[in-house]
Amino acid sequence: MSNHRKMRMGMIGGGQGAFIGAVHRMASALDGEIELVCGAFSSNPERSKASGKEFFLPETRSYGSYQEMIASEKSLPEGDRMDFVSIVTPNHLHVPPAILALQNGFPVICDKPLAFSLAEARELRSVVEDTGLLFGLTHNYTGYPMVKQAREMVKSGDLGKIRKIVVEYPQGWLSTLLEASGQKQAAWRTDPSRSGVAGSMGDIGSHAENLAEYISGLKITQICADLTTFVEGRQLDDDGNVLLRFENGAKGVLHCSQISVGEENSLNIRIYGETGGLEWHQMEPNTLIHKTNDGKRILRNGVGDLCPSAQAHSRVPAGHPEGYLEAFANIYRNFARTLRSVLDNQQPDPLYADFPDVHDGVRGMAFIETVVAASAGNEKWVPFEAK
Amino acid sequence: MSNHRKMRMGMIGGGQGAFIGAVHRMASALDGEIELVCGAFSSNPERSKASGKEFFLPETRSYGSYQEMIASEKSLPEGDRMDFVSIVTPNHLHVPPAILALQNGFPVICDKPLAFSLAEARELRSVVEDTGLLFGLTHNYTGYPMVKQAREMVKSGDLGKIRKIVVEYPQGWLSTLLEASGQKQAAWRTDPSRSGVAGSMGDIGSHAENLAEYISGLKITQICADLTTFVEGRQLDDDGNVLLRFENGAKGVLHCSQISVGEENSLNIRIYGETGGLEWHQMEPNTLIHKTNDGKRILRNGVGDLCPSAQAHSRVPAGHPEGYLEAFANIYRNFARTLRSVLDNQQPDPLYADFPDVHDGVRGMAFIETVVAASAGNEKWVPFEAK
Amino acid sequence: MSNHRKMRMGMIGGGQGAFIGAVHRMASALDGEIELVCGAFSSNPERSKASGKEFFLPETRSYGSYQEMIASEKSLPEGDRMDFVSIVTPNHLHVPPAILALQNGFPVICDKPLAFSLAEARELRSVVEDTGLLFGLTHNYTGYPMVKQAREMVKSGDLGKIRKIVVEYPQGWLSTLLEASGQKQAAWRTDPSRSGVAGSMGDIGSHAENLAEYISGLKITQICADLTTFVEGRQLDDDGNVLLRFENGAKGVLHCSQISVGEENSLNIRIYGETGGLEWHQMEPNTLIHKTNDGKRILRNGVGDLCPSAQAHSRVPAGHPEGYLEAFANIYRNFARTLRSVLDNQQPDPLYADFPDVHDGVRGMAFIETVVAASAGNEKWVPFEAK
Amino acid sequence: MSNHRKMRMGMIGGGQGAFIGAVHRMASALDGEIELVCGAFSSNPERSKASGKEFFLPETRSYGSYQEMIASEKSLPEGDRMDFVSIVTPNHLHVPPAILALQNGFPVICDKPLAFSLAEARELRSVVEDTGLLFGLTHNYTGYPMVKQAREMVKSGDLGKIRKIVVEYPQGWLSTLLEASGQKQAAWRTDPSRSGVAGSMGDIGSHAENLAEYISGLKITQICADLTTFVEGRQLDDDGNVLLRFENGAKGVLHCSQISVGEENSLNIRIYGETGGLEWHQMEPNTLIHKTNDGKRILRNGVGDLCPSAQAHSRVPAGHPEGYLEAFANIYRNFARTLRSVLDNQQPDPLYADFPDVHDGVRGMAFIETVVAASAGNEKWVPFEAK
Repeated sequence: MSNHRKMRMGMIGGGQGAFIGAVHRMASALDGEIELVCGAFSSNPERSKASGKEFFLPETRSYGSYQEMIASEKSLPEGDRMDFVSIVTPNHLHVPPAILALQNGFPVICDKPLAFSLAEARELRSVVEDTGLLFGLTHNYTGYPMVKQAREMVKSGDLGKIRKIVVEYPQGWLSTLLEASGQKQAAWRTDPSRSGVAGSMGDIGSHAENLAEYISGLKITQICADLTTFVEGRQLDDDGNVLLRFENGAKGVLHCSQISVGEENSLNIRIYGETGGLEWHQMEPNTLIHKTNDGKRILRNGVGDLCPSAQAHSRVPAGHPEGYLEAFANIYRNFARTLRSVLDNQQPDPLYADFPDVHDGVRGMAFIETVVAASAGNEKWVPFEAK
Repeated sequence: MSNHRKMRMGMIGGGQGAFIGAVHRMASALDGEIELVCGAFSSNPERSKASGKEFFLPETRSYGSYQEMIASEKSLPEGDRMDFVSIVTPNHLHVPPAILALQNGFPVICDKPLAFSLAEARELRSVVEDTGLLFGLTHNYTGYPMVKQAREMVKSGDLGKIRKIVVEYPQGWLSTLLEASGQKQAAWRTDPSRSGVAGSMGDIGSHAENLAEYISGLKITQICADLTTFVEGRQLDDDGNVLLRFENGAKGVLHCSQISVGEENSLNIRIYGETGGLEWHQMEPNTLIHKTNDGKRILRNGVGDLCPSAQAHSRVPAGHPEGYLEAFANIYRNFARTLRSVLDNQQPDPLYADFPDVHDGVRGMAFIETVVAASAGNEKWVPFEAK
Repeated sequence: MSNHRKMRMGMIGGGQGAFIGAVHRMASALDGEIELVCGAFSSNPERSKASGKEFFLPETRSYGSYQEMIASEKSLPEGDRMDFVSIVTPNHLHVPPAILALQNGFPVICDKPLAFSLAEARELRSVVEDTGLLFGLTHNYTGYPMVKQAREMVKSGDLGKIRKIVVEYPQGWLSTLLEASGQKQAAWRTDPSRSGVAGSMGDIGSHAENLAEYISGLKITQICADLTTFVEGRQLDDDGNVLLRFENGAKGVLHCSQISVGEENSLNIRIYGETGGLEWHQMEPNTLIHKTNDGKRILRNGVGDLCPSAQAHSRVPAGHPEGYLEAFANIYRNFARTLRSVLDNQQPDPLYADFPDVHDGVRGMAFIETVVAASAGNEKWVPFEAK
Repeated sequence: MSNHRKMRMGMIGGGQGAFIGAVHRMASALDGEIELVCGAFSSNPERSKASGKEFFLPETRSYGSYQEMIASEKSLPEGDRMDFVSIVTPNHLHVPPAILALQNGFPVICDKPLAFSLAEARELRSVVEDTGLLFGLTHNYTGYPMVKQAREMVKSGDLGKIRKIVVEYPQGWLSTLLEASGQKQAAWRTDPSRSGVAGSMGDIGSHAENLAEYISGLKITQICADLTTFVEGRQLDDDGNVLLRFENGAKGVLHCSQISVGEENSLNIRIYGETGGLEWHQMEPNTLIHKTNDGKRILRNGVGDLCPSAQAHSRVPAGHPEGYLEAFANIYRNFARTLRSVLDNQQPDPLYADFPDVHDGVRGMAFIETVVAASAGNEKWVPFEAK
């Protein structure tokens, strides 16, 4: 059967007032290739209904639990039921609905980090492998066109052999005990029972790790870490400084923070090879700086001869800024296009079959747990493996 | 009847390959409040069908002409037919379909500039006034949150009485005779029979005029202009420099260009009052610089105590860049929300009833024609009125 | 006789507390090629002595008037007497001491603008031509290395034929009636009896004009101007907007301001040719941006393959910022080296015989008077000639 | 006796072609408070004479060795002889001439790092303490006005208790084996017999350490380090990544590099306290960014209400960029003014008695040796003490 139609999405979590749920809805809507058809937006059935109404869904498809949603949707005729599930709950509620969805035949796209723990992540990986269904992870920062361009430039040797990587993710919003005020975002992120073993390192350090490996194409092999909880009364790290060693002998520095007062969301990366360097800042994402000892070049979205992937992930001409939602939408569009190919039994276009998957997710969880262990221990260098 | 449902949009123009049509579709889709239900995407019926299919529309609602679309949709039951029309054709094809739609009871949102000529614009204004239907114009740059913030700061007296405004819109993409290559965007923009009497001044200078008046709340009263066609073989201006005088005695400079090589889409404005100044750049739209002689402050989307309008036009937390499509989507969302209120016989929320209308459009056309006349004449100062 | 020795400078004006006098002393001292040996620092002999003492001069060489200084120094043996005179007084006191110095055989370097009026400037030009002595004018902004680089790139055709020039010089320090407070710098600059017919246009607009012509190598031929005095009680313009036409058909915009609140000293220029553009900001002077429609390149002091003149006007390796005093010092060093060559009857090195002269000064005065006249008149375009 | 006269400087090292010698000469000349009167510019007497001639010195005072210079100058009458010695040789030649000068009664100002080794630095410290003579170290980056401002803001509690410091010093000039080409600067800096045990960490990492402690007022107490030599054939580190712990519990990251291709001299620091953050970049030294979670403020040289020290170390009004030489000159001016006070038996003005001294130098050498040892060892945290 032909699937030249919008892919139908069911959402788990992300009711009214949730930050990341709204992001996923906008990202999935932008290109007109995905349609929100149902949701279990809250564990409270009334709140879920109210959210569904706000999102213009019929009452019958706003479910009181993800279990109910999966069962009900499965019972719908193929032409009506959702095609995939989007999971936008806090970390401890990623894996259970993901496994249930997969086991009932629904592909999944899930917020990051993949799981509450590495063990849980591995369990999910098994289910993904067993079911053979599509699984996407919204490490959204790799969706930016200039990140694609950077990766391509490293790959094609424009920088020579990579020697040094500096990747940072400073924020300042948790410089006080915001969680004590009841602020919802702060509350679950600083709560070990919902967030997992790491605070800043899990929430944003894992993005930095993912970005560094994605662009460089190199794996981290050794870690030396120093995590700190600066705000009194907080249970998880709110700052972390890490030295890195990469498989090819490159060295690196990764630091992230939620107490760097005045920083918004300043993910950035610098990567230096034998013959050139690159610099990219998430807060000015349309610009990539290419450095050599003879001068600097400013590469820009839509200008000049960018690689096909950078072009395919940009929607408007040069000088029309594309931001966070567009990058996030790239993950969703790529997932949807790939899913459509799968449903049509066609070979997915590799240009779009480019989104983080369950293996990236397992690696991210391994990174988080390794950094936490490394910080707690006296060993200088701790090996990083993601089995 | 209650209209708590997505607003249904029919599009005129914007078939496959059109730049601005895709922008309007993405902008209208982003918030999940508008649904594309039909279109007359091309004057070639087959191309229109093919486009509709690409956008996942049923064949029956991809029409071969706007006349057919308006007639057919009108005949559908109220619960199915489109709620409004979006017009994304070249300038000479704005007014005829707009008038037809209005006369058949369909509200309209239209790309800018409003019309092919001031006379035509006035005709449309009459129809809007006669029908009393909602009319929106996508002067999208006023949709940016920091533009709202700038306007509010001027209004609330943070700068004191305004003295000087510098507004610029340089581009470089037409520095060669690109239209001779058959490039579609270049072709109609440089063709007087489709674009009107002005080239750069109509396409982008009118954005600069609109932005300056929107932020300052001041009307331009006198114009001194020097338009140039630099590229040999071109028929319309590709560069323009204009001195401005405002109603309160403020002075200004407006310049726009399509031959400023290497410039992308560098709309920017600086505005100085007795006690403070503001600077905003479309290519870094999340930042607004507030200047005094004691120092500079960087205002940012989502940071600190911004005005309600800036907050209402932002979708993600600080540091997650919002760009062109988000600003464009603000125009659409505001139009849709206002339309829904109208359909429900409710008072529109003034926070969202904020989008350019037919009067802005008439003023824009008057600006274009005045600048062209002023440039051609020997008078130093030409009065600017928009009757 | 060989003059491999420091050039000996006598200064007129610039006593304690004067801003520009201190700048000239530091600029002349930086390279160790010029030695301050005497001065008439104030028309008040006691203040002149006190200033001389502060500058470590012997009492005998701190003179009570420039007339006394010129006469006394002339009577000293050649090995002791000053080699040249530096004039750093307000505008109305440039020409009289300059003429007296020249007529007594002393070369002169003088602050800008050259004179109080165009007529006076022409008189000085005659004396310079009659005496054949070296004359320098400290239009210091042309001393920056990246300005040299920009000029060279235009000259060598890197931008193609020049089409458009935008040059700006906004400041904000006179946004209130500062002169009423007795502030010395404000007082003379806003006083027609000391400053001349123009305020902002004479003080800083003339720098913008000089920079545009220096870099482009093009002469302005027509001017359309709108000067304003915004601050009540002020006698001279504190803001000016000017449209320009250049000899080759290029168009331009020049605006300057002393009421652009929050602006420091933001001289900047953008220049566009058929194939490339350049952008330079005085407040980030070590960077020159080269734009094409395929991307931007950042040229930096000391990096890569800059032209010989850019290299010759830079003192430290890349990344060690060079600023205003270094650029100013380039004018002095070039003047001193050229003077030494002249004294040694050698051909000056063209790399260093590069500093503004009396002809630039006459042109600057003509520009000021033309703009003032053009602003006052009803003619749209006023021819600009500097005879 | 009164010393209201220029301080007379004798220079050791810094002959023709040396980069840092020229810097010291310009820095000492800028303010007209110091006069170069003699030098031992090279260990080759002829080269020393030739250099002296270039600098306009009489042949009799261009010496063939520093020993000769010190002996000869000592024998001159007090009114003629040099007042102090400036040492600008490679690292291994700092201490021997410094000790000889001090032992002969001459105060010393010396380039950094202080010595070839910590042991040697301690020896010099003893001599400084024994002789009681003035000793200055040109850690020039602390001479910038906005560094003074940053230090003052930390001290006055504007940021609250300091939590995190990130300090970086990337360069790219040694990304190839430049020393093999005979390039003089590269040659001695990469030669352990002239540079000491460290390459990048000694040359520039020590500046980063000095800057972090200077601004924060905090001492580093623990170090975890990873130095690398990336360029094959090089003997010393050309890259280093260091985690820091400070005495108050603050954490830090310091990294420096000579192989970060395309980086010029990008020393920069970010420092975060409980309530605010600061960011400063050496390559844009006139700007200091003050961050809070409510917004950012741009502090600028000469604008608004800066601290007295920031004002005292700035020479020109706002918007006239001051750079590397001005900051370097601040060290010399402060040294000269303090020396003059000492010679006059007056209490030095604390505003100017602000320059790095022998204790900073010893601390710097201890830092270098600790980092090298820490990098080589398996201990995670190595204590940092400077006894």
